[in-house]
Amino acid sequence: MSANMGTDSTPAHGAGADETLRAWRTGIDTYQEPVVYMRRDCAVCRSEGFTTQARVQLTARSGSIVATLSVVDGPWLGHGIAGLSEAAWTSLRPQPGEWLTVSHAPVLESLSHVRAKVYGHRLDAGAFSAVIGDIAAGRYSDLHLATFITACAGDRLDLDETVSLTRAMIDVGERLDWGRDRVVDKHCVGGLPGNRTTLLVVPIVAACGLTMPKTSSRAITSPAGTADTMEVLAPVDLDIAAMRRTVESTGACIVWGGSVRLSPADDILIRVERPLDLDSEGQLVASVLSKKAAAGSTHVLIDLPVGPTAKVRSAEAAKTLGRRLIEVGRAIGLQVALRVTDGLQPVGRGIGPALEARDVLAVLRREADAPDDLRQRALRLAGDILELGGAAPEGHGLRLAAEVLADGRAWSKFAAICEAQGGLREVPLASHRQVVEAPSGGRITAIDNRVLSRAAKLAGAPKAPAAGVDVHARLGDVVQAGQPLFTLHAQAPGELAYARQYVDARPPIFQISEVS
Amino acid sequence: MSANMGTDSTPAHGAGADETLRAWRTGIDTYQEPVVYMRRDCAVCRSEGFTTQARVQLTARSGSIVATLSVVDGPWLGHGIAGLSEAAWTSLRPQPGEWLTVSHAPVLESLSHVRAKVYGHRLDAGAFSAVIGDIAAGRYSDLHLATFITACAGDRLDLDETVSLTRAMIDVGERLDWGRDRVVDKHCVGGLPGNRTTLLVVPIVAACGLTMPKTSSRAITSPAGTADTMEVLAPVDLDIAAMRRTVESTGACIVWGGSVRLSPADDILIRVERPLDLDSEGQLVASVLSKKAAAGSTHVLIDLPVGPTAKVRSAEAAKTLGRRLIEVGRAIGLQVALRVTDGLQPVGRGIGPALEARDVLAVLRREADAPDDLRQRALRLAGDILELGGAAPEGHGLRLAAEVLADGRAWSKFAAICEAQGGLREVPLASHRQVVEAPSGGRITAIDNRVLSRAAKLAGAPKAPAAGVDVHARLGDVVQAGQPLFTLHAQAPGELAYARQYVDARPPIFQISEVS
Repeated sequence: MSANMGTDSTPAHGAGADETLRAWRTGIDTYQEPVVYMRRDCAVCRSEGFTTQARVQLTARSGSIVATLSVVDGPWLGHGIAGLSEAAWTSLRPQPGEWLTVSHAPVLESLSHVRAKVYGHRLDAGAFSAVIGDIAAGRYSDLHLATFITACAGDRLDLDETVSLTRAMIDVGERLDWGRDRVVDKHCVGGLPGNRTTLLVVPIVAACGLTMPKTSSRAITSPAGTADTMEVLAPVDLDIAAMRRTVESTGACIVWGGSVRLSPADDILIRVERPLDLDSEGQLVASVLSKKAAAGSTHVLIDLPVGPTAKVRSAEAAKTLGRRLIEVGRAIGLQVALRVTDGLQPVGRGIGPALEARDVLAVLRREADAPDDLRQRALRLAGDILELGGAAPEGHGLRLAAEVLADGRAWSKFAAICEAQGGLREVPLASHRQVVEAPSGGRITAIDNRVLSRAAKLAGAPKAPAAGVDVHARLGDVVQAGQPLFTLHAQAPGELAYARQYVDARPPIFQISEVS
Repeated sequence: MSANMGTDSTPAHGAGADETLRAWRTGIDTYQEPVVYMRRDCAVCRSEGFTTQARVQLTARSGSIVATLSVVDGPWLGHGIAGLSEAAWTSLRPQPGEWLTVSHAPVLESLSHVRAKVYGHRLDAGAFSAVIGDIAAGRYSDLHLATFITACAGDRLDLDETVSLTRAMIDVGERLDWGRDRVVDKHCVGGLPGNRTTLLVVPIVAACGLTMPKTSSRAITSPAGTADTMEVLAPVDLDIAAMRRTVESTGACIVWGGSVRLSPADDILIRVERPLDLDSEGQLVASVLSKKAAAGSTHVLIDLPVGPTAKVRSAEAAKTLGRRLIEVGRAIGLQVALRVTDGLQPVGRGIGPALEARDVLAVLRREADAPDDLRQRALRLAGDILELGGAAPEGHGLRLAAEVLADGRAWSKFAAICEAQGGLREVPLASHRQVVEAPSGGRITAIDNRVLSRAAKLAGAPKAPAAGVDVHARLGDVVQAGQPLFTLHAQAPGELAYARQYVDARPPIFQISEVS
């Protein structure tokens, strides 16, 4: 049909397919979705026919972004002004008052693949590449992202689709190269509150000479991600140059993957997964392995905690997920090893960034009351990695790991890593606390990890780093009526009340059986 | 755990679980999602630990709503102020400057059902009731809604689930009772541009003495819904009292279902389905039948246009969907009849509210060049309903329908209905047009309805009522090179250019084969 267009009105370009408005920073925090605010009566809205929720392209001298439009009837927004949300302002980076060109966003052809997936069709590599390319370029609204995530959730991605998604996610970001044969890494498939072994494994392994450039995520559905906990102790939002300097000088790092943008599409997907509280196997595998491959790792140990209230609930589910991780790893050139661990109860005592950081420091500093379960877990994982990375003969990794922890080399290494990342920090304390006591005496026979995590989140974790839950009793312990079971920590009284209300309304989190 | 809470800080209610701010109308149009804007440094954010995207409860003297929080750093929002989006303002209806109580929204327990559905589990009646209850009460954010819609899309709801969803949607709204044995209705399962038979069927049927209180929807994924087209000719946003007056005086009405709020949850789901361009069988059935049941209908005819580019693409798909409609209808006490119609090409000439309204008027006024396909379709459907409703013996409905159209009774009835709804309106004309001509001569062998619809939407339909596509050639026509195939209509030059760009970038919408 091209080149055969008649016209009985003014040529389309005559009236201006694009229009200009002056950039103004509104300071509205829309949680990373770029939004632009324009008056309903402005010339651009009128001539372009823009209405609320339209996707518009904003172009400044610095580049272009796509944003969601909110039309405004109200005198607070001036004539001729495009008000930008914080996410729009920081990704476009215009000069204040700069003229922006405003036009219709290009049609998002890749949405047809998302719709096909919603209707249950398989997607090929080209489809994932198109979707992930558009996502990384910021062309999807939050609603589009929610639809893609939901359509891929559960077991709706097969092996080939998961490989395609993983490759697409690697391809849209940078990929590091350390010039070494073996670069090790680890990942824990979350779901177990307080399981903060990474902060112990990295310094142990690096103290034995291995290279471990660790990028970690912030919490998706949990009260703290490894990056959230590490941030309590040192800066984690390093760029790639700073990450490289840290690894060159200490052999390792623990940084937030989002700021080095190794898998930028993943970071965008996570911002929507979080409020939805959704995880999916395919996206989990793609998320984990794309980050590892992009970080230049060659050998990766995956920790799979299994328990009825952990993320992986049965040995069977761990096997399925483990197999998928190994297969996708092989397809993209990563050697993946697994360790299935006990996921019956929280690890350590703290749940929440600061409380977990406190536990980690106690182990590294060999304090007498340091949580032994956290130490034992970390040593086993470190032992595996020492063998996987060739730093210890098979069967000797665990002993070597225990040595470098016991003689203080791990603590020195951790301190060196923190210094290289910008300086070791003090752990903050929560201003508001409330103890929850045992309603009756007896032996603790079960602990609901999910409800504990939820309480920690309602108390403010991870956004309020000192918030969370401090657990005082473990499976098998015999407790008296009135003995403290756990303490809620919050940085705001409203959040403390909210978490307490939630705990009050639930069946008991700790099951206590009478001791006969 | 209840009644066993110790405390080592101030009691939670002492510091105030709730806080107050003054209501201010920002005029920000967030497309129906209630949003509240609060300064990051306000006492409420600080004491409650609120962060962006938190779900908060706002309470005024007039009632309570749940809104999504956007935190603001910027001087334009005053201290002590809660800025409300238009959707928040119009649903809460506070007095300007009224003190609002701001607190955490209650935990949304029904989201666990949504997650279960995402992971592929069946939901029972109680689960749907909980989800739909929360949706109707405005407790779901747009992201939550997108997840629920996607999780139910495709064929992910079985018969029992669809019945439960339909019942839940009826139960949260009002249900009309007309005190008559038979109240007829019709519904077209869209996907066919220009198929505006309702505006003809209703006056024909009512002129024969049947009761037909028609509520119609606005467009979801199409360039015009029946309510959008009717609105060009008369007001459609009647409340229930006005709808009742119209039906009492004329025997019928054609109003927008959203303003009578007969199935309020459906209206909320539709606002998110629209930008996602998603439909699902289960939600389609629940949406259609819940509206009919709530409107007090007893006998419903469903028009199922079938064609490769219509919404229902095969006779097989029509059968499956038809069976589901009949079965769910039976479960909720509605007698459903089906008519499968030809969905190969657009009906009438116009696509878009005003262009379709023009076609309808031409048929009602018996103009010489009125589109005959639209007339024939409407007569067949009206004939079916006349028989279903007992106004004509079997086999005689079509003839009766043709009579009341031919003798002007249908036109008089339509004019009476428009008057009762608030007055018959003039049809507006688009200010910007562009003709698309045949690139070569020959016979038209196929027309891509989906691309035509998309072009009409890009040109501004349905939000700009005069926008759309006017089709000049039909399947089987022989055309010359350069002969007009269709005309794009727009109310803004940018939208005209946008639609033309889209058409230019596609393979031909009309397939033209050389005539040998």
